[in-house]
Amino acid sequence: MARLNSFHLPPEAWPAPGSGRPYVLEGAEARHLLKVLRTPVGGRVRLFDGRGRDGLFALERAEGGRAVLAPESLAERPEPPDRLVLALGWNKSGRRDWLLEKAVELRASGLAFWRAARSQGDLPDRPKETWTEKMVQAAKQCGNPWLPELAVVSGGLDGLVAFARGFERCYLFWENAETALIPRPEDLGSGRVLAVLGPEGGLEPEEAERLLAAGFRSASLGASILRWETAALLCMGLAHLGRRNEP
Amino acid sequence: MARLNSFHLPPEAWPAPGSGRPYVLEGAEARHLLKVLRTPVGGRVRLFDGRGRDGLFALERAEGGRAVLAPESLAERPEPPDRLVLALGWNKSGRRDWLLEKAVELRASGLAFWRAARSQGDLPDRPKETWTEKMVQAAKQCGNPWLPELAVVSGGLDGLVAFARGFERCYLFWENAETALIPRPEDLGSGRVLAVLGPEGGLEPEEAERLLAAGFRSASLGASILRWETAALLCMGLAHLGRRNEP
Repeated sequence: MARLNSFHLPPEAWPAPGSGRPYVLEGAEARHLLKVLRTPVGGRVRLFDGRGRDGLFALERAEGGRAVLAPESLAERPEPPDRLVLALGWNKSGRRDWLLEKAVELRASGLAFWRAARSQGDLPDRPKETWTEKMVQAAKQCGNPWLPELAVVSGGLDGLVAFARGFERCYLFWENAETALIPRPEDLGSGRVLAVLGPEGGLEPEEAERLLAAGFRSASLGASILRWETAALLCMGLAHLGRRNEP
Repeated sequence: MARLNSFHLPPEAWPAPGSGRPYVLEGAEARHLLKVLRTPVGGRVRLFDGRGRDGLFALERAEGGRAVLAPESLAERPEPPDRLVLALGWNKSGRRDWLLEKAVELRASGLAFWRAARSQGDLPDRPKETWTEKMVQAAKQCGNPWLPELAVVSGGLDGLVAFARGFERCYLFWENAETALIPRPEDLGSGRVLAVLGPEGGLEPEEAERLLAAGFRSASLGASILRWETAALLCMGLAHLGRRNEP
């Protein structure tokens, strides 16, 4: 069987169960379904909300550029117990899009951006719409029903320390660490874990000391100096391999 | 101290020790040193050969677009005992360049390309010049004194089986494997290891069976279907973390 085409219907647009309200795709997703793929009435597609819910649907009708769909089967998954969130020092990096794609593929639970002393460029106030769009595209391709949650952490180091509350383990990846642990897959892949990485150019020693004093564990990815996106991907890949509960 | 600019002088261009012959940079590398960076006579740079040899040099003179350099100190490293080579199913992938960069950064020892049943596009007869150039750029950035060795394996599966001789362990990453090992960092990072991946679209069952019959061990990167370049990077990242002998 050919894989069904997937479309993203955001969580807030899903009708409450039993409400009898229709499933309506709008905007770019509806355009893609109707105009680009020319899905016929009755044609079957997959909708997903990026929060663990998806389903099989048939196109009922087109209505002013919107697509009205009838559910055939619905699935809802509990939130995975193992959660890795990366807190990445902000960069102007052109590789951010690529990282967003890989975060979906490797099933990271979240990406948070924070401003470090050596961060370049302006940290936006909130995650950008285009970041989510990038992740949606990746989720269609790899079938991950969960989109990583995006966050912008304001307040610098204090903000980051506050953000870290609620995680079972917080690792600080810092190349200058003297007694750094090289994490095993299970270190990053089990439980609720936060992995903090600096921006390109690394952390200032005072920044690292402040975070270690706040209880973050010092960690390393080996003797080589890895690029920002390589280090982030390696953390996500380790966690992916260390998870036991994946479907 | 600011990091010195690095230039690649291929192994065959290094004068034999004690020969008294000069160190001469040509072509694009000389142009970059002389015209772009306008290195003054006496200016210091690093040369590396990509086979573990490098040194500190001072510019002696420019000579018809070539740069003649005098050595101040030279270093030669023994070949690392732990070697990971990836054998990648050929693809038209636009992400090949990116993978070449990451192979340098994560210190893979080699990349070999082979033609699988589902390979798209023409496998070239030999590694392309531009691939090496891409790796040289990456090596300048991350300081790895070794360039991964590139190979094109002809002869399909038989060629691949022949290529695999001489490796201590050969892993076949195959998503349909029933009893697949998820490798630990040390599995890929210690000894002479070959990791075989299919092209985008995966392996045909008969291909996998042929390789398993030839003694390859079946391995997995988890339940998600990863993209070609993500799977390759994850193998290289694991090996990087599993190595004990890195400087």
